[in-house]
Amino acid sequence: MRARKKAWTEHEIETNERIIKNAADHKGKWSEYFGNCNPIHIEIGCGKGRFIVQTASMNPNINYLAFEREEHVIVMGARASTGVPCSLGFIIGDVSDISDYFNEGELDRLYINFCDPWPRRKKWHKRRLTHSNFLNVYKKLLKNGSGIHFKTDNKELYEFSLNSFSDNGWRLKNITLDLHNNGFEGNVVTEYEEKFASVGMPIYRCEAYNV
Amino acid sequence: MRARKKAWTEHEIETNERIIKNAADHKGKWSEYFGNCNPIHIEIGCGKGRFIVQTASMNPNINYLAFEREEHVIVMGARASTGVPCSLGFIIGDVSDISDYFNEGELDRLYINFCDPWPRRKKWHKRRLTHSNFLNVYKKLLKNGSGIHFKTDNKELYEFSLNSFSDNGWRLKNITLDLHNNGFEGNVVTEYEEKFASVGMPIYRCEAYNV
Repeated sequence: MRARKKAWTEHEIETNERIIKNAADHKGKWSEYFGNCNPIHIEIGCGKGRFIVQTASMNPNINYLAFEREEHVIVMGARASTGVPCSLGFIIGDVSDISDYFNEGELDRLYINFCDPWPRRKKWHKRRLTHSNFLNVYKKLLKNGSGIHFKTDNKELYEFSLNSFSDNGWRLKNITLDLHNNGFEGNVVTEYEEKFASVGMPIYRCEAYNV
Repeated sequence: MRARKKAWTEHEIETNERIIKNAADHKGKWSEYFGNCNPIHIEIGCGKGRFIVQTASMNPNINYLAFEREEHVIVMGARASTGVPCSLGFIIGDVSDISDYFNEGELDRLYINFCDPWPRRKKWHKRRLTHSNFLNVYKKLLKNGSGIHFKTDNKELYEFSLNSFSDNGWRLKNITLDLHNNGFEGNVVTEYEEKFASVGMPIYRCEAYNV
C-alpha cells in the first residue's frame, strides 16, 4: 500500500505542471516564472491545498505559491487544482530553507493556517511557524508593510503567536477570537478548519504587518 | 435605606483622608501631593478598590490613584484602605474628564480591570474604556513607553480592545487568553475576577505600551 502511494506521488510530482521542479532556481525571478508583475502570496504548510486552490481561483490577478514539505500531501492539492483557472504553483520544501527560494522583499503576503501547535514541551516552541526565528526570516522575504494572515484552532498557539508577532515588532490587525461567529467576510475555510468548527471549536485569526 | 446609604457615603467622603477633595487642583502637581517623585499608577474604575488597595500595599515605592465615578462604591475602597500602609489616594471623577486631573506625561501606568463591556449596541462601543477616543487621551497623560494593564472576562470586549490598542499604535505585550491557567505570576485578583474565575470563566489580560 505504501509503495503504491509512493508511486502515485512520484508520478504526480513528475507530471503535474503546477508542481514546480527546481523551485530554488526561480529565486529572485518569480515574476518571470509567472510571466507578470502581480503580487505573490504564499501559504506555508498548504497541506492538501483546499485553501490555496480556492483562494487562487477567486483572485486571478494574484500569483499564489503553496509551500509544503510533505510530498504525499502536496500532490493532492496539486491534483485538485488541475483545470482550475488560477495563477498557482506548488513548491515541495521545508520552511527552514525558505530563504533558498525567495529574495528579500519578493513576497507580498504569507498565509499560515492551522500549523502544528507543538504543544507539551517548551523546547519545541521554536518549531512553531510563528516563532521569532521564523518571523525574522519572513520579515526579510516580505515587502515592507506586507502581512501574515494566521489562523488556528489552538488557543495556546494563538496566544503564543500574538505575543510573538507583537514582541518582534509586527503590527497586529483584525484579531478575532471566534472567526465563525463575528461577521468576518470572505473567509476561505481549510480542511482542518471545517473539522474543528463543525464541532463548535472557536477558530482564532489575526493578521500581522511588517511595519 | 437609600438615604442612610447616602448619608454614610457623604460622611466617608468628608472624613476619609484618602479621598482627595478638589483633586483637579493637583493637576501637574501630584508629586507635591504625594511628597515624593515616585511613579504614579492609576486605576480607572476602581470599584470597591480591592485590587488597588492590595497592589498599593505590595508596592510602597509607587504612588497609586484610584479613579471611580460612583461615590457609593469608591467609599468602600477608601474605607477598606484605612490603616493599610501604602501611598494611595481616591479620586471621585468621570473618565471623560480625566484630562482635568493630570498633565501630559504625569502618569506611569494605567490599570483597567473588568470595565463595562457595553455589549449589544455598536453605537455604545465608544463608551468602552479601550475605545480609541479614550486611548488617545491616555496616551497624552502617560509618559512615553508607559503601559496600560488590562483585564476582562468578556471575550468580545477583549477582542475589541486588542484591536483598538493595536490599531491606535500601542504595542501589545503579555497577551493571555486564560490568565488563571498559564502560570502568570503576581496577579492581584479583583472582586469581579474572583467571581468569574470561580465558575471557570477564562480571564483575559494584556498590556499595551505607548511606543
